[in-house]
Amino acid sequence: MRKYGVVDTTFSRVDMGSIAVKTIRAEDPDAEIVRYTVPGIKDLPVAAKRLLEEGCDGVITLGWVGKSMLDKYSYLAASIGLIMAQLLTSKHIIDVTVHEDEAEDEEKLKEIAIDRVKKHAINLVKLVRDGRTALTPYAGKGLRQGYEHAGPID
Amino acid sequence: MRKYGVVDTTFSRVDMGSIAVKTIRAEDPDAEIVRYTVPGIKDLPVAAKRLLEEGCDGVITLGWVGKSMLDKYSYLAASIGLIMAQLLTSKHIIDVTVHEDEAEDEEKLKEIAIDRVKKHAINLVKLVRDGRTALTPYAGKGLRQGYEHAGPID
Amino acid sequence: MRKYGVVDTTFSRVDMGSIAVKTIRAEDPDAEIVRYTVPGIKDLPVAAKRLLEEGCDGVITLGWVGKSMLDKYSYLAASIGLIMAQLLTSKHIIDVTVHEDEAEDEEKLKEIAIDRVKKHAINLVKLVRDGRTALTPYAGKGLRQGYEHAGPID
Amino acid sequence: MRKYGVVDTTFSRVDMGSIAVKTIRAEDPDAEIVRYTVPGIKDLPVAAKRLLEEGCDGVITLGWVGKSMLDKYSYLAASIGLIMAQLLTSKHIIDVTVHEDEAEDEEKLKEIAIDRVKKHAINLVKLVRDGRTALTPYAGKGLRQGYEHAGPID
Amino acid sequence: MRKYGVVDTTFSRVDMGSIAVKTIRAEDPDAEIVRYTVPGIKDLPVAAKRLLEEGCDGVITLGWVGKSMLDKYSYLAASIGLIMAQLLTSKHIIDVTVHEDEAEDEEKLKEIAIDRVKKHAINLVKLVRDGRTALTPYAGKGLRQGYEHAGPID
Repeated sequence: MRKYGVVDTTFSRVDMGSIAVKTIRAEDPDAEIVRYTVPGIKDLPVAAKRLLEEGCDGVITLGWVGKSMLDKYSYLAASIGLIMAQLLTSKHIIDVTVHEDEAEDEEKLKEIAIDRVKKHAINLVKLVRDGRTALTPYAGKGLRQGYEHAGPID
Repeated sequence: MRKYGVVDTTFSRVDMGSIAVKTIRAEDPDAEIVRYTVPGIKDLPVAAKRLLEEGCDGVITLGWVGKSMLDKYSYLAASIGLIMAQLLTSKHIIDVTVHEDEAEDEEKLKEIAIDRVKKHAINLVKLVRDGRTALTPYAGKGLRQGYEHAGPID
Repeated sequence: MRKYGVVDTTFSRVDMGSIAVKTIRAEDPDAEIVRYTVPGIKDLPVAAKRLLEEGCDGVITLGWVGKSMLDKYSYLAASIGLIMAQLLTSKHIIDVTVHEDEAEDEEKLKEIAIDRVKKHAINLVKLVRDGRTALTPYAGKGLRQGYEHAGPID
Repeated sequence: MRKYGVVDTTFSRVDMGSIAVKTIRAEDPDAEIVRYTVPGIKDLPVAAKRLLEEGCDGVITLGWVGKSMLDKYSYLAASIGLIMAQLLTSKHIIDVTVHEDEAEDEEKLKEIAIDRVKKHAINLVKLVRDGRTALTPYAGKGLRQGYEHAGPID
Repeated sequence: MRKYGVVDTTFSRVDMGSIAVKTIRAEDPDAEIVRYTVPGIKDLPVAAKRLLEEGCDGVITLGWVGKSMLDKYSYLAASIGLIMAQLLTSKHIIDVTVHEDEAEDEEKLKEIAIDRVKKHAINLVKLVRDGRTALTPYAGKGLRQGYEHAGPID
C-alpha cells in the first residue's frame, strides 16, 4: 500500500500540513499518511529522510521563509539538503516553500500557501502512484503553484 | 543497447522534453529513450538519478527558471544537486537550463530553448555513444548553446 | 535512556551552552547531557556528528555569527554542514544561531540569544522524547524563537 | 606508472586542454595522459571523477566562465562539485578557471589562460609525482597563476 | 601518539604553515606533525582528508583569500568542502582563513594572519589532546582570532 509523508513547521503562519493531509487523502483515499512537525525549514531534510527510511514512498515538505537575507540563505541550505535527502533515498520530496515577501497582504499570502500546497500535494500523488510519465501531458505547459498558470509559449 | 533519459518539467513554458526526445532519436536511432516529467527544477536531480539507476547511460535534464532572486537560489541548489547525482552514479547528466530573463521577448526565449536543447541533446549522444574524446575536436572552440557560437580567440 | 548533546562555541558572546544544559535538564530530568565546545560555527557540524555517533539521540548547536558578508558565507557553509550531518546520521540537530546584526543593543542581543536557546532546547526534547507529532499542535502557529511569536494568519 | 587526466570544455575560447597536455608531457615525459572533453563547467566534476576511477593519479580541469551572475552561480556549483569529487576519491583535481571578466581585451584573456594552465599543470605534476611537500618551499610565497606572483609580505 | 596535520598554500602571502608547525610543537612537544602544501584554498579539503586518512588526529588548514567576489565564492566552496571532509572522517579540521580585504595595510594583514594561526593551532591541540570540554571554560567568552577578543556580554 502507498504511504505518504507530510512534514510541516511551527514557524509557518498557515497550517499547510492539514491542507496537505486533506488533499492527499482526497486524491488517494486508500493510502496511509504520516505527519511530522519540526520547528523550521532547516529541520525539514532530516525529517523527510526519516519518513522515507520508515517506508514512505514520497514526502511533501512545507516550508515558510522570512524576508531577510539570512532567511534566504537558510532557504538555500534547506533546498540543498532536501535535494541531498532525495539523492540518498532515490525517492521524491516535493518541496513547497512560501516566502513572506511574496505578498504584502497576509490574506494573499495565505491564498498562495493554500494553492501551492494543494497543487503540489496532487503532484506528489501523481508521481508516487502513477509514475514518471503521469505529469508528461503537462510538460512545458507553464504550470504554476501559488499563482495562475503562466501557460506555454505558443 | 544504449538508453537515454530525458527529464523535463511542467513549470517550463516550452515543451523541451519532446524536442530532446526527437533530437536523440534522430541522432541515435537504435537507442531507447525514457522520459520523466516532474514539477520543477528542484525535482530534477532525483528523477535523473532514478533513471540512471534503472539503466540509463546518460540523462538530459531540461530546467526552466524564473526571474527572481529566489529562482536563482533554486537554480543554484538544483545545479549542485545535479552535479552530486552525477558524482554518485559516475554518469553524465547534461543540464539544460533556460532563464526567463535571458530574453525580453517570448519568441526569442523559445528560440533559445529550442537551440539549447537540440545542441545539448547531441552533446549527450556524443558523450554516451562516442566517449570521452568525441567532443575534443571542438575543445576551446567557444561553442554556445542557445546563442551563436562565440568562437575561439585567435 | 535519552542522551542529548549540546555544542557551543568560544566565539559566542553569550554562554548559550549553559542555558541549553539547564533547560534540557529541567525539561527532561532523567536524561544524560553531553557538552562539546568548539571555536566557531564552522566547527559545529563535525562536533555534532561525533556526539550523535557516540550515542546522543539529538543535538542542539549554538552558533554566533558576525556582521560581515564573510560571516554570512560561513553561516551558509555551516548550515549546509549541519543539515548534511543530520542526513548522514538520520537524527535531529537543532541549529540555534544568533547574528550580531539582529540588534543594535548588546542587551537586546543577549535577550534574543537566551530566548532562542530556551525555546529550541525544549523543541529538541519534544522531538527526541515525544516524537514526530509532539510539535504538531503548534504546526502553522507562527512560532518564533528570539522574538515574539508571529502567530497564525487567520 | 603515473597517469594524469586532462578535462576541458567546448565552451572555452582557448584550447587549454592542448596546453595542459603539452606541459604535463614536458614536465613528466614518462607518464600517461588521458584527455576528456565536455560541454561546460558543470560537466567537469563527473568527468574528472570518471578519470580518477579509471586509474588517473590526478586530474586538471580547465573551466571557462561567462560574465553574468548566473555564470558565477554555475561556477560556484562546479567548484563545490569538483571538491566533492576529490573528497570521494581522495585524489587531487587541480581546478583551473578563467573568467571572461578578468580582462577587457581578448588577447589579455588568452595570456591569462595560457599562464594559468601552464603553472597549474606543473603544480599537478609536483603534487602527484613528488608528493605533499613538493610545493612546501613555495608556501606563503604569494604565487599567482594567470598573473604576476604577488610575493610574500616581508 | 598524537599526530597533527598542517595544510598550507603557495597562494598565501604569509608562511602560516611554519607558524602552525612551531605553535603545535611548543604546545604538544611529543606529537608528530605532518605538513602538506597545495596551490590554493580549493585544494585544501582533499589534502586535509588525505592526512586524516593517513592517521592524523586533527588538521589545521591555512587559507588566504583574495578580494574579489569570485574569491569569496571560492571561499564558500572551500568552506563547504572542509566541513564535508570533517563529516566524512569525523575528525576536526580547524579552518584558518585570512582575507586580503581584512586590512588595508600589509603589515596589519600579516599580524592578523600570525595571531589567527597561533590561536587556532592551540585550539586544535586542545580539541585533539584534551577533548570535547577542553574549550568549555571559554564558551561564550567572545574569543576572537586575528583580533582582540570581543569578550562576553555581561
